[in-house]
Amino acid sequence: MKQEISELDELLSMLFPICRSLTGDGNRETFRILQEVAPIGIIEYPSGAPIYDWEIPDEWNIHDAFIKDKLGNRLVDFRKSNLHVMGYSEPIHQWMTFAEIEPHLHCLESAPDAIPYRTSYYQRDWGFCVTKAQYDDLKSYRDRFEIKIDSEFDKNGSMTVGEIVVQGELPTEYLVSTYCCHPSMANDNLSGLLTALFLARDCLSGSKPKYSWRFIFVPETIGALAYLSHNENALKMVKGGLVITTCGGPGRLGYKESFLKEHLVDRATRLAFRDQGRDPVHYPFVPDGSDERQYSSPAFRIPTITITKDKYYEYPDYHTSCDNLDFVNGAQIFESLSLYRHVIKILDENTTYLSNFPNGEPQLGRRGLYPTTGGAINQPAMDSLCSDASDIDAIMWIMFFSDGKHDLLEIAEKSGISADRVLEAGNKLESAGLVRSVHL
Amino acid sequence: MKQEISELDELLSMLFPICRSLTGDGNRETFRILQEVAPIGIIEYPSGAPIYDWEIPDEWNIHDAFIKDKLGNRLVDFRKSNLHVMGYSEPIHQWMTFAEIEPHLHCLESAPDAIPYRTSYYQRDWGFCVTKAQYDDLKSYRDRFEIKIDSEFDKNGSMTVGEIVVQGELPTEYLVSTYCCHPSMANDNLSGLLTALFLARDCLSGSKPKYSWRFIFVPETIGALAYLSHNENALKMVKGGLVITTCGGPGRLGYKESFLKEHLVDRATRLAFRDQGRDPVHYPFVPDGSDERQYSSPAFRIPTITITKDKYYEYPDYHTSCDNLDFVNGAQIFESLSLYRHVIKILDENTTYLSNFPNGEPQLGRRGLYPTTGGAINQPAMDSLCSDASDIDAIMWIMFFSDGKHDLLEIAEKSGISADRVLEAGNKLESAGLVRSVHL
Amino acid sequence: MKQEISELDELLSMLFPICRSLTGDGNRETFRILQEVAPIGIIEYPSGAPIYDWEIPDEWNIHDAFIKDKLGNRLVDFRKSNLHVMGYSEPIHQWMTFAEIEPHLHCLESAPDAIPYRTSYYQRDWGFCVTKAQYDDLKSYRDRFEIKIDSEFDKNGSMTVGEIVVQGELPTEYLVSTYCCHPSMANDNLSGLLTALFLARDCLSGSKPKYSWRFIFVPETIGALAYLSHNENALKMVKGGLVITTCGGPGRLGYKESFLKEHLVDRATRLAFRDQGRDPVHYPFVPDGSDERQYSSPAFRIPTITITKDKYYEYPDYHTSCDNLDFVNGAQIFESLSLYRHVIKILDENTTYLSNFPNGEPQLGRRGLYPTTGGAINQPAMDSLCSDASDIDAIMWIMFFSDGKHDLLEIAEKSGISADRVLEAGNKLESAGLVRSVHL
Repeated sequence: MKQEISELDELLSMLFPICRSLTGDGNRETFRILQEVAPIGIIEYPSGAPIYDWEIPDEWNIHDAFIKDKLGNRLVDFRKSNLHVMGYSEPIHQWMTFAEIEPHLHCLESAPDAIPYRTSYYQRDWGFCVTKAQYDDLKSYRDRFEIKIDSEFDKNGSMTVGEIVVQGELPTEYLVSTYCCHPSMANDNLSGLLTALFLARDCLSGSKPKYSWRFIFVPETIGALAYLSHNENALKMVKGGLVITTCGGPGRLGYKESFLKEHLVDRATRLAFRDQGRDPVHYPFVPDGSDERQYSSPAFRIPTITITKDKYYEYPDYHTSCDNLDFVNGAQIFESLSLYRHVIKILDENTTYLSNFPNGEPQLGRRGLYPTTGGAINQPAMDSLCSDASDIDAIMWIMFFSDGKHDLLEIAEKSGISADRVLEAGNKLESAGLVRSVHL
Repeated sequence: MKQEISELDELLSMLFPICRSLTGDGNRETFRILQEVAPIGIIEYPSGAPIYDWEIPDEWNIHDAFIKDKLGNRLVDFRKSNLHVMGYSEPIHQWMTFAEIEPHLHCLESAPDAIPYRTSYYQRDWGFCVTKAQYDDLKSYRDRFEIKIDSEFDKNGSMTVGEIVVQGELPTEYLVSTYCCHPSMANDNLSGLLTALFLARDCLSGSKPKYSWRFIFVPETIGALAYLSHNENALKMVKGGLVITTCGGPGRLGYKESFLKEHLVDRATRLAFRDQGRDPVHYPFVPDGSDERQYSSPAFRIPTITITKDKYYEYPDYHTSCDNLDFVNGAQIFESLSLYRHVIKILDENTTYLSNFPNGEPQLGRRGLYPTTGGAINQPAMDSLCSDASDIDAIMWIMFFSDGKHDLLEIAEKSGISADRVLEAGNKLESAGLVRSVHL
Repeated sequence: MKQEISELDELLSMLFPICRSLTGDGNRETFRILQEVAPIGIIEYPSGAPIYDWEIPDEWNIHDAFIKDKLGNRLVDFRKSNLHVMGYSEPIHQWMTFAEIEPHLHCLESAPDAIPYRTSYYQRDWGFCVTKAQYDDLKSYRDRFEIKIDSEFDKNGSMTVGEIVVQGELPTEYLVSTYCCHPSMANDNLSGLLTALFLARDCLSGSKPKYSWRFIFVPETIGALAYLSHNENALKMVKGGLVITTCGGPGRLGYKESFLKEHLVDRATRLAFRDQGRDPVHYPFVPDGSDERQYSSPAFRIPTITITKDKYYEYPDYHTSCDNLDFVNGAQIFESLSLYRHVIKILDENTTYLSNFPNGEPQLGRRGLYPTTGGAINQPAMDSLCSDASDIDAIMWIMFFSDGKHDLLEIAEKSGISADRVLEAGNKLESAGLVRSVHL
């Protein structure tokens, strides 16, 4: 745990300064760093390719940008924060008055110390994002400013996405998705990127998972759409998903439900929270948010949940330069990671049993699964009578519902017994030949 | 609004004094007045005709009735209130003692100033309904009284009902029904008659409704049964209905649910109340009440709701002469009318969409339906960024659920957005070619 | 009622001292006494026969048992309480030290005055169950003890079960089951044995029930399994059941729901409690308890409820010698019996009707089922107008739901009218030819 937290902190420091966007070399550099943790496969989708109702944008790269006073002082400096330039700004180099620049300036009255995060992906424009102090300072000048955005668009470029597909014993797939298109903000979305990365590494280590797990790292919206359109058949078969974002803040854990509200992914998530004794902020489904908007759209209808810690929209520093490494750290991300790991374990190990002894109860005592001395329910330390029978309640629930219609998840819900204990008792019964799995 | 209220008040004054019953000229006169507002078609069902388990009663008309003392003073006078005579009283003209009259006298201990409303439609009888003071006065006389009921039954008469059928774009029908058989009582049921009348007029003016709407004005029970039996096929196909009664009192608005509790008519009614910020008295379904007893019977099963303002049974003046124009007025009826109009609008405009872009989200920004500058969710006046995007939340909900399985009503319920805004956003999306209607 | 209570008290006294077990002459003697009340048929299943995953145990009988000091004093004496010997103890006769006996001694620290009840049916062993005082006394001796258990196992013996099958008008069956294998304990389970016995006697007296009712009296677990395996086809068709146990204590009535929670047997039970104005302790379904574990197992899935009065596990004297005739009496058993009788009445008389007049309402007034004077809802004593119409509300609910889809039980639930009144009104309507039963 401590090691993983340090690892997360180190990755945060390396990744934070990089200028990411829908496309560009910042994204490629980000993937190179992530690949040191898990073997992400890289796919490049060419600019200009049509994607459903959309088109892959031209590749955008930026080298420098500033607003200088007549003395050449950089009043606004891209090198200090890549948030100073509106994402996908056109190149410009001109002398302009404040009045001419003003329509292209973004600042927040409500958060005067913060640089806001702005983009203009699908309509060519340029802009600078500044603190209130910078805005006021610029406004106070009477002279012209030298403004420059040294960016370029490449029609022959591409959009970079990453994927790790872990084949399980069964072909049925779950999806884990996060987005890599946000520049220097830590909660939105380095926290999500790193959480997904660690989950993928888990999945590749140890024994083969039962289900197949597809991890994808894409630019939000257009990246998700491009990936869907290139993997349409596979994605239309996905059982459920996790959309990972903003899970590293200091606030309370949250859970945004899927559009089905009662899908397996919702139930596994609620069990993980229940069994860890955590009570998340509950966010009812709304058709807004992150890439669940694409995955859950009518043609795909993948139910996805999201676990957050300071959810997007909800914290004051959202989409500003204050979403930084003072706000986010590895220990906080680790809390969300633990929940996600629990969810994945429950989803992956969940099964439905058929009893091999459906007529009444099998004789558990003979198999060491039930106390041999009867009547002793009034003896406090019943478990001491038969150490193998410590799972007696979980065992009885499972045997009762081993009819091919009730999965272990439902048993954990109904019985109040922790999912982990139910899964373990299930394994014991399967080993004893009392039940067999059916895959629904 | 003011004009409609005056119109309602004027109609109340004209209709109140008329003696209505299951049959007779009072009903015909009532219809003649109603026809000045909307073109009600008149149907006469001949007396004696069998109707399911019933029979159309002989036509009943009454010209005068009184109880006179020996000096010829009218102690009880039909000309003062038609409630003084029990509906469908046989003709009688005789000198009788109080003891002989007494079994035929109806008065209310609990409401001494009120004349109760009584009928004996299906068992030949006669009776006078009097105030407690009149009862005591009659009792104090030692002499005989001259009593007379100048009524007549006509085996060759008929029962009068009214209808307006408004054809919509689709053949699917909704039913609006009210009853016309109550004599001089204002809430029960001039309020209902006028509300249904105004709704019918609405429906005939302006553009063609999407669904077909059938408005009927019938004597309660036997009138509804007769209409059902003569329109059996059509009525068995009706989607839902409104049974309009007692909606003009000074009290709180009420909503009686259908036997299905969650039918479209219930959900539209609850949305109308929700969106108008009104909280009605909630009346759970009971198989009692008005003509929902017939429409919802096993062979028809039309789910109907009722919106009330001082519901039958519930107000002290119910079924007495105190249910008069001091209790009811046009402004009060107008409140119920507004709710019913809202319900009808929601029912008629409701639709289910299929997305023309089901793979992920269509690019709304390109169509002016989404802000082109990204990231600005932390800017308070988001709408100011893009005036066309003010319906962004309704638009996203609709696009998400445009799968042919969720109607706009459900979207209004789930999202909390007003039905009116959802319907409007739906129109916008349909115009933009993003969705198409499917009629379920 | 008084007579039944005395009868119960008398039977309790006769049955309490008998040493019952899974098998043996004590069980046969018990059945002989029960047969004086109702004609229980006796079935003997031979020892050694395989039953699903189990085997009928050898027959066990015991004649005497003791622990004597060197002077021949019986320190522990089977003749004082048959609980002193662990059920199915092997024969033994030996001189032993306390240290040698100790692993075979059972006592309760938490209830020092009580002899605990213990068995070892499926693993050969022997044991004595003693009070804490006896334990301490034995421990204080330095000498050897003479211990003797004069028991015997018979491989050629059998296990005794009892049954009464009452054929009803319809072949569909309900099951009533109780267990007869517990030695001298009154609540667990003489209370259950006697309740089931009286219910069987009810069912045989008076008119034929509508459904068929199968009453069985079996040793817990292995007896139920044996009976299931010998009546597999019949039992797989059973509609629902009552598992009767521990219903004679001084505590509050309880209700353990079936695994379906909303099955007919649950709903009938809840109605019986509701209509008797009793609020039971509610025990949610758990796959533990008595023979519902066998009846509700995957291959049979008979939903069963249990009504208790001091439920097993829940009272301090459970499975000890303190569960005796100071704790249980006939009057207490009678309370549970009354509830079970009510449940059986509701289940047996429940039906679903089809209206013979489904088009609107039939004319009830003509049949004396509705007041002939209309409008009089504001008259308090409406019932006085028409004594036959006192069931008017029940009648209207039934007529409305006589569509072959809603049974009388559901009508009692929805309307809040007592099940008894609904059943009675149903009979009245059936007699009047207004409805006919459909058996679902």
